Amino acid sequence: MSSSELDVLQTSAGALCQRYSSIRRDSVELAEPVSPEDGVIQSMPDVSPTRWHLAHTTWFFETFVLKEWLPGYAPFNPAFETLFNSYYNGVGTPFPRERRGQISRPGHEDVLAYRRAIDERLTKLVERELDGDRGALLAERIVLGLQHEQQHQELILMDIKHVLSQNPLHPVYRELDSAPGGAPPGPARFERFYEGLRSIGGEGAGFRYDNEGPRHRVFVHEFELADRTVTNGEFLAFIEDGGYSRPELWLADGWSTIGERGWSAPLYWTHADGRWWQFTLGGRRPIDPAEPVCHVSYYEADAFARWSDARLPTEAEWETAAEDASIEGRFARPGGHHPRAHGKSKPGMQRLFGDVWEWTASDYAPYPGFRPPEGAIGEYNGKFMCNQRVLRGGSCVTPEGHVRRTYRNFFYPHMRWQFGGIRLAR
Amino acid sequence: MSSSELDVLQTSAGALCQRYSSIRRDSVELAEPVSPEDGVIQSMPDVSPTRWHLAHTTWFFETFVLKEWLPGYAPFNPAFETLFNSYYNGVGTPFPRERRGQISRPGHEDVLAYRRAIDERLTKLVERELDGDRGALLAERIVLGLQHEQQHQELILMDIKHVLSQNPLHPVYRELDSAPGGAPPGPARFERFYEGLRSIGGEGAGFRYDNEGPRHRVFVHEFELADRTVTNGEFLAFIEDGGYSRPELWLADGWSTIGERGWSAPLYWTHADGRWWQFTLGGRRPIDPAEPVCHVSYYEADAFARWSDARLPTEAEWETAAEDASIEGRFARPGGHHPRAHGKSKPGMQRLFGDVWEWTASDYAPYPGFRPPEGAIGEYNGKFMCNQRVLRGGSCVTPEGHVRRTYRNFFYPHMRWQFGGIRLAR
Amino acid sequence: MSSSELDVLQTSAGALCQRYSSIRRDSVELAEPVSPEDGVIQSMPDVSPTRWHLAHTTWFFETFVLKEWLPGYAPFNPAFETLFNSYYNGVGTPFPRERRGQISRPGHEDVLAYRRAIDERLTKLVERELDGDRGALLAERIVLGLQHEQQHQELILMDIKHVLSQNPLHPVYRELDSAPGGAPPGPARFERFYEGLRSIGGEGAGFRYDNEGPRHRVFVHEFELADRTVTNGEFLAFIEDGGYSRPELWLADGWSTIGERGWSAPLYWTHADGRWWQFTLGGRRPIDPAEPVCHVSYYEADAFARWSDARLPTEAEWETAAEDASIEGRFARPGGHHPRAHGKSKPGMQRLFGDVWEWTASDYAPYPGFRPPEGAIGEYNGKFMCNQRVLRGGSCVTPEGHVRRTYRNFFYPHMRWQFGGIRLAR
Amino acid sequence: MSSSELDVLQTSAGALCQRYSSIRRDSVELAEPVSPEDGVIQSMPDVSPTRWHLAHTTWFFETFVLKEWLPGYAPFNPAFETLFNSYYNGVGTPFPRERRGQISRPGHEDVLAYRRAIDERLTKLVERELDGDRGALLAERIVLGLQHEQQHQELILMDIKHVLSQNPLHPVYRELDSAPGGAPPGPARFERFYEGLRSIGGEGAGFRYDNEGPRHRVFVHEFELADRTVTNGEFLAFIEDGGYSRPELWLADGWSTIGERGWSAPLYWTHADGRWWQFTLGGRRPIDPAEPVCHVSYYEADAFARWSDARLPTEAEWETAAEDASIEGRFARPGGHHPRAHGKSKPGMQRLFGDVWEWTASDYAPYPGFRPPEGAIGEYNGKFMCNQRVLRGGSCVTPEGHVRRTYRNFFYPHMRWQFGGIRLAR
Repeated sequence: MSSSELDVLQTSAGALCQRYSSIRRDSVELAEPVSPEDGVIQSMPDVSPTRWHLAHTTWFFETFVLKEWLPGYAPFNPAFETLFNSYYNGVGTPFPRERRGQISRPGHEDVLAYRRAIDERLTKLVERELDGDRGALLAERIVLGLQHEQQHQELILMDIKHVLSQNPLHPVYRELDSAPGGAPPGPARFERFYEGLRSIGGEGAGFRYDNEGPRHRVFVHEFELADRTVTNGEFLAFIEDGGYSRPELWLADGWSTIGERGWSAPLYWTHADGRWWQFTLGGRRPIDPAEPVCHVSYYEADAFARWSDARLPTEAEWETAAEDASIEGRFARPGGHHPRAHGKSKPGMQRLFGDVWEWTASDYAPYPGFRPPEGAIGEYNGKFMCNQRVLRGGSCVTPEGHVRRTYRNFFYPHMRWQFGGIRLAR
Repeated sequence: MSSSELDVLQTSAGALCQRYSSIRRDSVELAEPVSPEDGVIQSMPDVSPTRWHLAHTTWFFETFVLKEWLPGYAPFNPAFETLFNSYYNGVGTPFPRERRGQISRPGHEDVLAYRRAIDERLTKLVERELDGDRGALLAERIVLGLQHEQQHQELILMDIKHVLSQNPLHPVYRELDSAPGGAPPGPARFERFYEGLRSIGGEGAGFRYDNEGPRHRVFVHEFELADRTVTNGEFLAFIEDGGYSRPELWLADGWSTIGERGWSAPLYWTHADGRWWQFTLGGRRPIDPAEPVCHVSYYEADAFARWSDARLPTEAEWETAAEDASIEGRFARPGGHHPRAHGKSKPGMQRLFGDVWEWTASDYAPYPGFRPPEGAIGEYNGKFMCNQRVLRGGSCVTPEGHVRRTYRNFFYPHMRWQFGGIRLAR
Repeated sequence: MSSSELDVLQTSAGALCQRYSSIRRDSVELAEPVSPEDGVIQSMPDVSPTRWHLAHTTWFFETFVLKEWLPGYAPFNPAFETLFNSYYNGVGTPFPRERRGQISRPGHEDVLAYRRAIDERLTKLVERELDGDRGALLAERIVLGLQHEQQHQELILMDIKHVLSQNPLHPVYRELDSAPGGAPPGPARFERFYEGLRSIGGEGAGFRYDNEGPRHRVFVHEFELADRTVTNGEFLAFIEDGGYSRPELWLADGWSTIGERGWSAPLYWTHADGRWWQFTLGGRRPIDPAEPVCHVSYYEADAFARWSDARLPTEAEWETAAEDASIEGRFARPGGHHPRAHGKSKPGMQRLFGDVWEWTASDYAPYPGFRPPEGAIGEYNGKFMCNQRVLRGGSCVTPEGHVRRTYRNFFYPHMRWQFGGIRLAR
Repeated sequence: MSSSELDVLQTSAGALCQRYSSIRRDSVELAEPVSPEDGVIQSMPDVSPTRWHLAHTTWFFETFVLKEWLPGYAPFNPAFETLFNSYYNGVGTPFPRERRGQISRPGHEDVLAYRRAIDERLTKLVERELDGDRGALLAERIVLGLQHEQQHQELILMDIKHVLSQNPLHPVYRELDSAPGGAPPGPARFERFYEGLRSIGGEGAGFRYDNEGPRHRVFVHEFELADRTVTNGEFLAFIEDGGYSRPELWLADGWSTIGERGWSAPLYWTHADGRWWQFTLGGRRPIDPAEPVCHVSYYEADAFARWSDARLPTEAEWETAAEDASIEGRFARPGGHHPRAHGKSKPGMQRLFGDVWEWTASDYAPYPGFRPPEGAIGEYNGKFMCNQRVLRGGSCVTPEGHVRRTYRNFFYPHMRWQFGGIRLAR
């Protein structure tokens, strides 16, 4: 969100309410293909039910806006304070994450009623307070809530994909408007970047998460970066070359992970009837060798890179390469919740944004001088800065306009249900 | 089901179809207070979603009636053959039990459509075949399917109680038509039974499960049996006397079970605001000391008995005592899914049937000469004859008319979500 | 131990001390082939280190004799009261069983010193007190301690076999004095026993464990019992007939057990270089088809019986058949810690005693009227009467003279490291 | 090891053999206080038995020197190739790590014989081959083996401390020659370092591990570093201020780790009789507030830093500060296997080396341009570069002369059995 956009939202109650209701509506629309039965299921502890996402994002506004701005605020339902708290220890003990799939009530309709009630209260608050003393702060907090809601829009899609994939009936969330079958692109081209002292991270006006700053200097050695992400066809070659059974290609933790979990292909791939299939949000369909490989863990990305005699880029390298790139690519839209096949080679870096998140080799760590904000809201990002790896660039299930060049997504190295792919460096 | 009743069902297609549709309708009615969201949840591996029960009982008729009687039968949906198979290895590999709660489709409406389609096919089959060569066998198999469906009616209630109990909102399945607050009964009276060679188990015409026979002789030593089951008030005295923290009262496996699981009261009991509460199918309410204690494991029943200087009866003792008792008590009906408070003492054994299942000290073992039927249907009972204990008499969630004097229910000693109570012997 | 033997021990301090030192010496001799390193290892939670057995049996005499008879007794080492308590909650909290293999000290020599110290104190006590008021009781308690020590002698052998079997070097505990290679016996013959009211269990003078009584009547139906136990050759035929992959042969709990643990043969069997081997206390050697099959779980015994169109006997049947049998067979002796090959058929029941324990179909339950003794010593047997199955007859690692016709051994159905075999009934 | 030292070892067989036998002897001497029983135990999967360390370090020379230099080399014992392989998949499948404590043979004496045999073969090889074509390479490999042996000398001490700590008898490995009771030092002083482009990592002649290079530039922001490590007294203040129960002080993974494991103090600390004790290699003794806190996990170090309004240094910061420091401090010696109490404040950084390893905030990652050597020896370091954190400076159980300014030790964030302490930065 640019600085001028933020300015508008901080000064016009109408604009802010419109933005609010638009993003809030997007969530409800995403849930439309989700049946009441679908929307309850937690297919693994990392996944949350759709219904929970709809309630939790509402809880976020209730907790961090209404409660903070309205002295004596009476909660919509005191039990929700616990039930829909994700991980903010500063505002009470959250209901255990792994038990979210055991809670059937409030049901879908009741959650929609909760959303409407909070929306109404929040809209009134904005109308009354935006031009008051703490108006800019209020707008900032609401904008944070909307960015948060967009993150959960991506999670709704990631999670429902995992839920539906458990079912041998291969249910369809929404038909995709593309079919497999394109011609594979030629080999990736590597572009060289010269060494130097760079600045990365965000600063100045406009919205960004706390973890994107402070902007700071970092020395980047000369490196090369592939102009596109790795394709399914290339990853198949790795599989066929025995990639999953050659320990010398793997990190020690990766090797034990694939052994314990019995992995021999990316998540959602199955081999049946003599060919490879993948489960998508549009149901099951054959692997398209021209599409970017997706749903790989960091370990698989790293092993593939080693097999390719390459490596994964650091986030400083990635951000250096992205400095002048425009933020274009496949972002979330109905029918488009799947990465596009790569086409013919073109000059320049292709699709640094959208389609698939790109694993970096970087530990998710605080930037020099980083301090999370005071209070429970400070738990948003900082406390996760250990054991995770940074991914960059957004994906086909990220809302349009949500990512930035400095945007840092992060997952544990063994995680695969996010739309994560591979761009090689060397 | 008496011999004459069975005769009628074996000779009148009208009577059989009417019985069939009546029991099938009962299941659907039981599911009415269950929301689509409720009906998906598997709150522990022992529990199955309501929707699964509705589909599985239908699968039973499709698999063991339609498929066996109709050569070349095309299944309603081939994926259902696996999805809704509970544990019959003889007809394919069942979908993993612990993953039943990960399957959202077919949804509730689709399951009802499945039920209607099978009901229609089965009704036609009966009308065409009941007076044919294998008509008596067909009726017998359908009757087995209906008894099976009744067992799942009890499971629907047990399971949804467990599901709803997970929710801090204390949801109500259906309001109960009784309230706590009766006067506690006087002390239990013990009735003496003299030693002798008895016959137990069922034989002759009429329906019964294979595990109830053969009828056989067993030597029963002199014993005494309490005239009523143990009350909540008596069990509270055990708790207050440190029952859960005195190892000398417990079986070794019981002591380790309560330690590992942190048990200090029956299932569904909680202590809050200075008093004891229990979760019921009508929501949460205070413990009534006059009601029979319910939802205790075998270990708790056994420890309570030891604390009382008594023991649990064997199933031969129980059946001896029940020989002349009429099968009366609280069975399942809307508003009555909870055991009744004990009233004033009356002569004779009270409520051997209904209200709460009664744990016996007997291992669930084959009777001398027992042989399961040939084929997959032989998996119904026999293969579970290890590590479980017999319970007798039915409960307030058992369908009226379902239990017999020779009826053997069975659960593992650590299980508590069935409506199991305690009757003392010595 | 006969009544007259017990009489002697109760009246002659010399005889009692001699018996005591003889059995105590046996334990130390059994530990001689065990290196200090061997003697520390706990290869699974059920196993205890040899050193622990030597200390625990000593602790038993210290706790249940010295402490009870000597007011103000000062323990040899207060830490041992916890470290070497097995499961007697009545005398303190035992050191966690699964951590016995983490304790290296006291080392082997220190444990021997502990034994000597307690032996000396106990001998003095006997000499002083045996003709006193409580002399008979003292002798009885010491005899119990000696029977207890003999049980641990069997455990030392079972446990060290399991420990050594973990090692790819196939270490030898002691060379066996027999080699595989006998001719397989002819088919087993079944002997018929007529129905009737029998009495089982022990009574009268002489030593027995509390769980063997009271003697009581039980109605036994007509049955047939095989004249010998099942051989390796017969069990191999079961394996080769797909026994481990046919669910219809297995109890439900058995089927899940073999699936989870990946069992496809008895414990200690391995298939290598085109043949079957077994690990013995004399190292690894080829399977002898004439030897009794050993180290099978209850589940395997039961599945084998079902495959043979037979079943396992109840303990009442077994005791009926053993009524007139002499207690002869292979019991523990150096070079003989392995069951003997079956020879040519002979009239009568063969080897009901010794060689291999025989699984019965009976739940390990209290006999009618059973009451454990008061105090911590009452924990010896009674609290284990749930979830276990009875085995009868003793084995080639049971000390000579230890078992009786009424002797009840017991293990969980999944356990295989005891020397357990199969005798068929029908 | 300096460049000139390495030169000597590469050219003088006598010097090389002397160095070899001196370091090899150190290992055996370290094992002297370890009884045969102690030396078998694996008290948790991370720990290896002493005996295993003595054998594995020998296996290292056999595998990476004798086998590579002697064509047709016949192994000392083929089973050892698997048993004593730690994690080198390139030379076969290692025996499962978590089962090292189940192997009692070869026993202690047999392992010493193995050591002598390999020592003899290796000495002969050196005498024959050091002035040959591959002599420099041979010396380099042997030096690597000696550094490897020194790492295992530290592991022997870490591991035996953990083994002995399991025992309620508080055994002593070796008496310490210092006693608790010094005066606590004054508050730590922070020294400022200015920002700049630095070079870190090793290069040039002399021995170092592959993971220490290549030397490369890194931009370091201005920072301050404490002049000494955190004391027990300071850490006690953290505990007493509720440090272990305030989620806002912890990383999310740290908070869940302390919850699951029930941690409320550093490893080896216990609270008894109204005071804090710690288990040391000299047995149990009271906490000395002047000593450096030790045996804390990364999570605890990080939480303590946050509580102190500080943070942990990066490894670049640490190496910057260490640039001119002399490598002095408490390293391993008999009686000295414990960190020293801090004394009065002195100018300059104190004890960057020795006493306790210092956690850094840095992910253990490859330096730019890092490539592991070809072959199985390349598994030494590289494959562990994920999920671990770097520690710097060595400890009181590190052999004298083993660490360098560029030395990178690494452990998972939850690990505490290494001698790890805390130096604050900000």
